Amino acid sequence: MSHAADNNPHTGSTRYNDSFPKIPAAALGLHDAGRLAALLQKEPATVYLKTMGQMLPDTVAHNIIGEITGSEFPDEIITVGGHLDSWDPAEGAHDDGSGCVQSIEVLRALKTIGYKPKRTIRIVLFANEENGTRGGLKYAEEARSKKEKHIFALESDEGGFTPRGFGVTMSAEHLNKLRNWLPLLTPYGISEIENGGGGSDIGPLNRDLGTPLAGLQPDSQRYFDIHHARSDVFEAVNKRELELGAVSIAALIYLVDKYGL
Amino acid sequence: MSHAADNNPHTGSTRYNDSFPKIPAAALGLHDAGRLAALLQKEPATVYLKTMGQMLPDTVAHNIIGEITGSEFPDEIITVGGHLDSWDPAEGAHDDGSGCVQSIEVLRALKTIGYKPKRTIRIVLFANEENGTRGGLKYAEEARSKKEKHIFALESDEGGFTPRGFGVTMSAEHLNKLRNWLPLLTPYGISEIENGGGGSDIGPLNRDLGTPLAGLQPDSQRYFDIHHARSDVFEAVNKRELELGAVSIAALIYLVDKYGL
Repeated sequence: MSHAADNNPHTGSTRYNDSFPKIPAAALGLHDAGRLAALLQKEPATVYLKTMGQMLPDTVAHNIIGEITGSEFPDEIITVGGHLDSWDPAEGAHDDGSGCVQSIEVLRALKTIGYKPKRTIRIVLFANEENGTRGGLKYAEEARSKKEKHIFALESDEGGFTPRGFGVTMSAEHLNKLRNWLPLLTPYGISEIENGGGGSDIGPLNRDLGTPLAGLQPDSQRYFDIHHARSDVFEAVNKRELELGAVSIAALIYLVDKYGL
Repeated sequence: MSHAADNNPHTGSTRYNDSFPKIPAAALGLHDAGRLAALLQKEPATVYLKTMGQMLPDTVAHNIIGEITGSEFPDEIITVGGHLDSWDPAEGAHDDGSGCVQSIEVLRALKTIGYKPKRTIRIVLFANEENGTRGGLKYAEEARSKKEKHIFALESDEGGFTPRGFGVTMSAEHLNKLRNWLPLLTPYGISEIENGGGGSDIGPLNRDLGTPLAGLQPDSQRYFDIHHARSDVFEAVNKRELELGAVSIAALIYLVDKYGL
C-alpha cells in the first residue's frame, strides 16, 4: 500500500460479494497493522473498534464545466479534466486537487498567450469519482444524447508530481501521431507515451463514443504514500512540479487542437 | 532561490572581494524578503538584526572510507561518495545524507548479492564539502602521493529524489561507453547520460589525476526548496526515491567494475 514510515490509514472503497456475510471493514495505519499482526501470531486477540462511518442517502453534486468554443471546428470537443471530490481524511490535494488545478491552468495558459483554439476545449471538474464515477458517466451520457463529437479526452488523476509521460487508450494510428510530437513535449519532462491509460472519469467517453483517451503520468514514487490518507494535503504539492504537469497537458492539447487527431 | 511557499531562510557561503568593505550578510526567508523589499519601495527603513554567527578556528574532521578490494585489478580504484557535513539549520537529509546512504548502499547491495568486484570499490563519505571541500582535496592529494590509479569516481550530492540521469566529465570515448549501457539503467529511472557533471568532492580527482567523473542527477524540482534550509529533514526524503538512486549508482558501478572504462 505504501512505503511511508508513517502510521496514516489509507481509506478507500469496500465492495461486498452477496455470497458472503457483510463484515465490517476499516483501514489501519502500517504501524498499527504490524502490531496487530504480531499480536495475532502469538495469541487470539479481541479488538474494540468504534467507527463513525455510515451510509448517507445520495445527494446532488455537479460537474463544473468551462470551455473555449472552437473558432473553426466548434463541434469537435477536446475534454480536459480532473475530479472535484476527494476522500475525507484530508483535502485530497494530489487526488485530485492537482488534476483540477492543472485542467483550469490549460485554459488559463492558452487564453493568456492569446491562442484561439480551432476546436472546442472543454475543462471538466468531475463530481463523484471516488464513489461511483457518476460525474463521468453522466458526462458521457449527455455527450451521446446530444450527439456531441468528442475527438480527444485527457485526465490528470495520478498526482501533481513531475510529469514523466502520457498513457493512452487509442488506435495505433493515433498513438503514432502523438509519438511524433514527443520531441515537442520533452522540454516539459515528458519522455514517453505508453499504450494503456486515461482516467476513471473519461473512461465512459471511450467506452460509449470511442473517444481516444490520454492520462498524465507523473513521477509515481510518492503517490501511494499519501493516497486517500491524512497526508494528502496542499503542503505535499510542489508548485513547480504541478506547473510542469499543467504545461505538459497544455502543450499536448494545443497540438491536438492545432493538427487534429 | 526557491519556489516554496514557506519563509525558511536558505543559508550558504559568503565570499568577500578585498576591494570592497566587508559588510555583514544574512539570509532571509522569501516572505520576509518580500515584505522588506515592499517597505523599502515606500521609504528608507532601519532593520535591527541580531545574529549569533561567528568564525571558529579550524578543527580536525575525517573522510570516512570503506572498500571492497578488487579480486583481479585491486590497484584500479572506483570511488563512490557523498559528503558527511551539512549546514546547521537542519540535519541536511538531502544535502548530503542521501548521498552518504546511497554510497554505503552500493557496497551493501553488491555484497548482499555475493558479487566479488574485479576492481577496488571504495566508498568515501567526504568531510567539509560545505566549507572548503578540504575532504575532497585531501583525498586527491593522498591519491596522487600514493600513485593510486583512479579509473572512475561518482558522487551523489543533488538530493535523494527519483533518479533521472547521470552527468559526466570524461572523454567522448568514455561517454559513449556509458551511453551504450543506458538500456541496462533505464529500469531504475535513468533516461540520459549528459556531458557535464560530477561532484565537488571528486572534482580534484579529475583535475589532478584526470579521473573520469559522474554525478547522479535526480529529479531537480524540489532540491532548492529545501537546500540549506530548516526543511532539509529526514521526513522530506522518500525511501523509494532514495533506493532507486542507490540502485542506479550500484548498477553503473557494477558495469564499470565488470567491463572497465
